[in-house]
Amino acid sequence: MSDSAVLLIDCPDRRGLIARVSSLLYEHGANILHADEHSDEVLGLFFMRIEFALQSDGLTMDLDNFRAAFTPIATDLNMNWSLTSSAERPRVALFCSRYTHCMNDLLQRWFSGELHCDIPLIISNHSDAQLLADFYGIPFEHVPVTADARAAAEARQLELLAANNIDLVVLARYMQVLSPEFVAQYPSRIINVHHSFLPAFTGARPYHAAHSRGVKIIGATSHYVTATLDDGPIIEQNVARITHREQVEDLIAKGRDLERSVLFRAVKLHLQRRILCYSNKTVVFD
Amino acid sequence: MSDSAVLLIDCPDRRGLIARVSSLLYEHGANILHADEHSDEVLGLFFMRIEFALQSDGLTMDLDNFRAAFTPIATDLNMNWSLTSSAERPRVALFCSRYTHCMNDLLQRWFSGELHCDIPLIISNHSDAQLLADFYGIPFEHVPVTADARAAAEARQLELLAANNIDLVVLARYMQVLSPEFVAQYPSRIINVHHSFLPAFTGARPYHAAHSRGVKIIGATSHYVTATLDDGPIIEQNVARITHREQVEDLIAKGRDLERSVLFRAVKLHLQRRILCYSNKTVVFD
Amino acid sequence: MSDSAVLLIDCPDRRGLIARVSSLLYEHGANILHADEHSDEVLGLFFMRIEFALQSDGLTMDLDNFRAAFTPIATDLNMNWSLTSSAERPRVALFCSRYTHCMNDLLQRWFSGELHCDIPLIISNHSDAQLLADFYGIPFEHVPVTADARAAAEARQLELLAANNIDLVVLARYMQVLSPEFVAQYPSRIINVHHSFLPAFTGARPYHAAHSRGVKIIGATSHYVTATLDDGPIIEQNVARITHREQVEDLIAKGRDLERSVLFRAVKLHLQRRILCYSNKTVVFD
Amino acid sequence: MSDSAVLLIDCPDRRGLIARVSSLLYEHGANILHADEHSDEVLGLFFMRIEFALQSDGLTMDLDNFRAAFTPIATDLNMNWSLTSSAERPRVALFCSRYTHCMNDLLQRWFSGELHCDIPLIISNHSDAQLLADFYGIPFEHVPVTADARAAAEARQLELLAANNIDLVVLARYMQVLSPEFVAQYPSRIINVHHSFLPAFTGARPYHAAHSRGVKIIGATSHYVTATLDDGPIIEQNVARITHREQVEDLIAKGRDLERSVLFRAVKLHLQRRILCYSNKTVVFD
Repeated sequence: MSDSAVLLIDCPDRRGLIARVSSLLYEHGANILHADEHSDEVLGLFFMRIEFALQSDGLTMDLDNFRAAFTPIATDLNMNWSLTSSAERPRVALFCSRYTHCMNDLLQRWFSGELHCDIPLIISNHSDAQLLADFYGIPFEHVPVTADARAAAEARQLELLAANNIDLVVLARYMQVLSPEFVAQYPSRIINVHHSFLPAFTGARPYHAAHSRGVKIIGATSHYVTATLDDGPIIEQNVARITHREQVEDLIAKGRDLERSVLFRAVKLHLQRRILCYSNKTVVFD
Repeated sequence: MSDSAVLLIDCPDRRGLIARVSSLLYEHGANILHADEHSDEVLGLFFMRIEFALQSDGLTMDLDNFRAAFTPIATDLNMNWSLTSSAERPRVALFCSRYTHCMNDLLQRWFSGELHCDIPLIISNHSDAQLLADFYGIPFEHVPVTADARAAAEARQLELLAANNIDLVVLARYMQVLSPEFVAQYPSRIINVHHSFLPAFTGARPYHAAHSRGVKIIGATSHYVTATLDDGPIIEQNVARITHREQVEDLIAKGRDLERSVLFRAVKLHLQRRILCYSNKTVVFD
Repeated sequence: MSDSAVLLIDCPDRRGLIARVSSLLYEHGANILHADEHSDEVLGLFFMRIEFALQSDGLTMDLDNFRAAFTPIATDLNMNWSLTSSAERPRVALFCSRYTHCMNDLLQRWFSGELHCDIPLIISNHSDAQLLADFYGIPFEHVPVTADARAAAEARQLELLAANNIDLVVLARYMQVLSPEFVAQYPSRIINVHHSFLPAFTGARPYHAAHSRGVKIIGATSHYVTATLDDGPIIEQNVARITHREQVEDLIAKGRDLERSVLFRAVKLHLQRRILCYSNKTVVFD
Repeated sequence: MSDSAVLLIDCPDRRGLIARVSSLLYEHGANILHADEHSDEVLGLFFMRIEFALQSDGLTMDLDNFRAAFTPIATDLNMNWSLTSSAERPRVALFCSRYTHCMNDLLQRWFSGELHCDIPLIISNHSDAQLLADFYGIPFEHVPVTADARAAAEARQLELLAANNIDLVVLARYMQVLSPEFVAQYPSRIINVHHSFLPAFTGARPYHAAHSRGVKIIGATSHYVTATLDDGPIIEQNVARITHREQVEDLIAKGRDLERSVLFRAVKLHLQRRILCYSNKTVVFD
């Protein structure tokens, strides 16, 4: 496939935004493949994602030229924006603890080409995932986390992330809570999976809580991590029916499939630059 | 279809319960159509539902004889139990306020034979459902509820329920909270629909809360009413996906379908005597 | 809500289409509320739906002026297109036979404001829906259809449709097959619901066929009617799980809910002008 | 967990079957954990699955004694039956071709304890799965299949199956059609996954066919293999929504998740002895 790029914008809503952006793209030789937009009428905000081919009709678009021409317009219209070429491969680090089902799922999909990224680093506070990391040829770093050495562990993790130029951190059932200071280093760039249908059953042991409450449907949620536990912008949720026959261990088993699916979906959407955050919510252009 | 009956049991678990009950039924000429059982291993409880035909092989079973023979066994084994013949039609009262979508759905299904019951009474604190009640030929009672005359209203409602020998009260988006005293009159016999995926978003305006939290799936829940608001045993839940494009009014529209489906399901399951309550949960033999 | 309009376009794909259309809309004072586009890369086709407000920033857009300016461009770019104002209410005729569950659902939703249309006509080959039509105050025409007088019946039906300026015909479980000549009068303007998951189980008695094959999921399909039975462009499908316990009559009961939901969805999407047809498929901008 | 056993029965329906079987189990000291039954009223057939603990109340049941006592009763009542102890671990062989996503999923779940079986053998007509087999320490046999040497290949496969005492063959996207002679060796013991919602889109390239027909939901189906292609008793089906935006390759990617889930479910249900076949359908006691 030929090269493409994605332009993501959010700004105060006003008439003519689509015309202005699409015209500029046209003038620079872009061929729009997908355009998607959303307005929040209450807040007066506008969101847009445009994916375009860099080659078409024998033309090749110069992305730097476009960027130079677009910057003053974006400033004028008060835009938050980003422009990313498909030639850049995001660099992802995976964190996990003892449960490796999410890790296994992500690695297998990545290996078979479903995730457009590099994975140069796996970090865990346990060694269970070592063999899996070896199988896929990914450097594995064991960083133990103890109650009285949490700060040191996070310092080591941040060092590893920096050394590997990591763009996105994926918590694949990483069972430690990250400090607000850590989270602040990677705003909207840490994705977690919580094993409940948020906002129900935040915190520890959600399957036990779901069983105790007698719900008939369980769920899992992937979200960006913020300073408040289990409270960040939700990216994806999925659910499964349960019956009175299913005990806590059955919920845990069924939940594993939900966790895998919502975490994979979130990572894929992020890598495809389909997510915008605002007001602690997400716009997902899928 | 010939007559049938349903035997519902819950009791402390012990070996041989199925053998004992099924043998007694066989001796009295019952032909078991469906048998379902469940054990809660943690609490050591046993639950059973047996549906059997009263006529088979040229025999007709005498339900009173069976009842007389079963009673001492049930006492001996510490059973809670009930025995109901399909010849008895439960009597149902519907409560509603201004929104009539659940009411319309239940009435249309009842009219077309999907609900095995009589509906001799509709009560509302508004008059919106009057025309619908007239269309289906069901007596409609307008009982206004004001903040300072709630007790009087409930007294009138209880009087109407008693006068009509009501077995089951269905709150079809009835927007008033019933007092614990009212609820105590109909234990496990008042079914409500709450317009959220409980335990998320209890209380008022759940669709607004769901929109504000940015969830990707909304839900509805039908449950038995207890003294604590939105906390009773859950009977049925259903969910629907939403996106960032959907505003609160879209959630409300989508939610109406969920509310209809979970309320209908709960009422049907109750009428078929498929629900047992324990520990603020339900066993649903479907 | 203020007035809005929808512009629907399909044409050969080429660079700059979005820029050109959105710029013209901007110049005429339109405020784009939603824009959606799709390209079929294999066939080289482009599809667009733009919904825009006619009033904004103190301006009022003149739709006729825009139409006049847009027409030569559309011709130049080989577009199929339509421009519809929200001020125009589509006129819908409902057809049914003996089963009234889909009819009841559509009428109840229409009555409560979920469908933006007028319904001036109900036609049936039976009289079962008469009472329902009366309740909602809609003229009901009983047009019997017999094997040897099908042509006469269709002539009468077409006469009624013409006399009522009908834009859309909805077959709400109408159990007669329409002739190709009838269908040709309303291309992409007759919506049917088939009670299976197409293309499985076309033709008569699909629930019997599903039960016989032992499927674990049943479905329903809404589609535009073409000259070939059960073969038109699919608009919406929905499914429900079943088990070995469910007999044909249970499938039929469960299927009624699926039929209701897919038919309602299709009618709503059509009325909101969210559907484009090509290659016997649909583009649904929802 | 202590030992348990499963008794599976199908026979002509008659009064008293549950009483007779459950009484005999009680007399031999069994403690019933789960009982499930089903009657096909049209065919007059009865199906039952009883799972019981071998130790309870300080008693240990002698399974051989029970078998000896049950055999004459079963003969008398014309039963097909099987009695299996949880102490026996079924032996499973996996077949695959080039796509390894189903294989990977099954192996990862097996490794983490979700499947109660041994997997002593993987057979493939390609070598893609070799590394995966090595990772999990499972013997891998490469058996190429060419058009003119199919019989020889099947002979080699059967030899390997026999040498490994295989109880169940799982076709994890094995892209070769097995001969009726091969299938006859393992009746109701070969499970396949077909990548469509059967009976729609049998045969090759079902995702292409689904895309071409313009369906809005795709599916996958696991089933027992019979002599007729894609026609055996269906065990499990699952579906996913698609839109006009999704091309064939997107359907293939989405379908992989469906294939994984329905194949895993089928294998798990089979291993738990929850499936009975009759009339080319399945009774699934889940």
